[in-house]
Amino acid sequence: MKGALVNAAGGIVARSEVPTPSGEGVDAVIETVIRTVSDLIARGQNEGLDIPAAGVVVPGIVDDANGIAVFSANLGWRNLPLRTLLQSRLGVPVAFGHDVRTGGLAEARFGAARGVRDAVFLPIGTGIAAATLVGGDVVTGDGYAGELGHVVVEPDGDPCRCGGRGCLESVASARAIVRRYSERTGHHLVDAAQVAQRVVDGDPDARDVWDDAIHALADVLAPCVALLAPEIVVIGGGLGASGEVLLGALRHAIEARLPCQRRPRLVQAQLGIWAGCVGAAILGWETHTGTATARGGHVR
Amino acid sequence: MKGALVNAAGGIVARSEVPTPSGEGVDAVIETVIRTVSDLIARGQNEGLDIPAAGVVVPGIVDDANGIAVFSANLGWRNLPLRTLLQSRLGVPVAFGHDVRTGGLAEARFGAARGVRDAVFLPIGTGIAAATLVGGDVVTGDGYAGELGHVVVEPDGDPCRCGGRGCLESVASARAIVRRYSERTGHHLVDAAQVAQRVVDGDPDARDVWDDAIHALADVLAPCVALLAPEIVVIGGGLGASGEVLLGALRHAIEARLPCQRRPRLVQAQLGIWAGCVGAAILGWETHTGTATARGGHVR
Repeated sequence: MKGALVNAAGGIVARSEVPTPSGEGVDAVIETVIRTVSDLIARGQNEGLDIPAAGVVVPGIVDDANGIAVFSANLGWRNLPLRTLLQSRLGVPVAFGHDVRTGGLAEARFGAARGVRDAVFLPIGTGIAAATLVGGDVVTGDGYAGELGHVVVEPDGDPCRCGGRGCLESVASARAIVRRYSERTGHHLVDAAQVAQRVVDGDPDARDVWDDAIHALADVLAPCVALLAPEIVVIGGGLGASGEVLLGALRHAIEARLPCQRRPRLVQAQLGIWAGCVGAAILGWETHTGTATARGGHVR
Repeated sequence: MKGALVNAAGGIVARSEVPTPSGEGVDAVIETVIRTVSDLIARGQNEGLDIPAAGVVVPGIVDDANGIAVFSANLGWRNLPLRTLLQSRLGVPVAFGHDVRTGGLAEARFGAARGVRDAVFLPIGTGIAAATLVGGDVVTGDGYAGELGHVVVEPDGDPCRCGGRGCLESVASARAIVRRYSERTGHHLVDAAQVAQRVVDGDPDARDVWDDAIHALADVLAPCVALLAPEIVVIGGGLGASGEVLLGALRHAIEARLPCQRRPRLVQAQLGIWAGCVGAAILGWETHTGTATARGGHVR
């Protein structure tokens, strides 16, 4: 669980990272959120900063407009009115949203998609999900948008934690890349960056695992790019940090699938693992200044 | 080339259909547009109707906001300021847009997607292109959105008129289905409805050709659905009229690719081949009443 004090320019002035309680129930998660935010507010106030609002963003299915955490398999909640609950405990106005969508918002305001109105933001880490900007607004799809990680790319593929088989996440997430390389070679690596290094070093097993991931990502991204014609696709998360060994191959694979469409710039995210925190702060700031718009289905 | 007089309720009160001049240059196309619209206006005025505006929509790459027909391979123009040109000749305000996107707008206002804010509209005829509604607005992508027909689904597949190989259009358009069935069997059918009938009758060749089309469509639609979580996907064009032999199989194929996402309703378009005309009239009406918004990247 990450938290940050963020200034109006999107700069992080203090940060906090604590383990999310696992297996201790929803209340333990909520108490940790409250403690993390309270501590950050106290740290800011001790420095003489005015902290007018907080933003909290969570994974899973999120009803942004009503402040409800609809569902998270990992965190265990269903239809939790988290915004109201946090606001009653924190003593500041609380904005609420979805972790990946607000990360995309942050990349659009302060990161790799600055100044762009149509963008797809794809963090690839333990899991894969997308945020989409259309005309400057984040697409929410009533809270269901962005689940690219669970598009089936190998119908008879590995089981996925979602209950499906052969989902994009089970082939192309950072975790899947490490697992597939280990299963193939017996070498247990720590993270996908090590697989990426072996690709660069010419390891054919690493190359095969990497290529499978690239082709699966391109199969899922190319239709999205054709449909929306975004100016830019921003790859984030742990895998995004692999640089051109990922981006060059993915650019080539997407372009091979789009013979005559407008091709987006494909770039690395700039805000890294803190994008969600900066995005949460943007939501909090907008709550404070009253600039948040609640046009149906959009967060801005 | 189709034209219609449309009332404020979206009803067609007169229609006109003339061949688009082929191989006679851009001027011949423009003159035919002007004659078609003028004739319809005259017909309306003869009936005592007040015709306050016209809407003209064209295929290809269209800059809706600036009224420019950017590119059409079939019609032969490049960067043609068509709106200004037509307005100077027609004597009424002229609204301008893209055929498929305005068809989607029409289905959203008066057709299968009435009352829905997030929708994908996919006409499948000679070609395949999509219109997307996000939060009630049609996505334009600077004029480049919607080119699903040219996503490559068979890397070594048949050449496509766009210059690529194995594009969705070359497998799943109504024209491709007829061609592929003929190539396979030597039986030359007139349209895809006949192939659909043979599928129902148990012809294994028809079934194979049909299944290839269904799977290609699902491969391209499933990522789009996962990204945007639309409430509804509307299938139009000639193939959309095939009913459940198409929709049932396509629904099943899309759902097989989306194990845990929100699944949209998959339905047949209601306005048929006249959706573009009704959409053009909506644009014309909005120009007249001043309700058209020019928020960047959107047509409403």
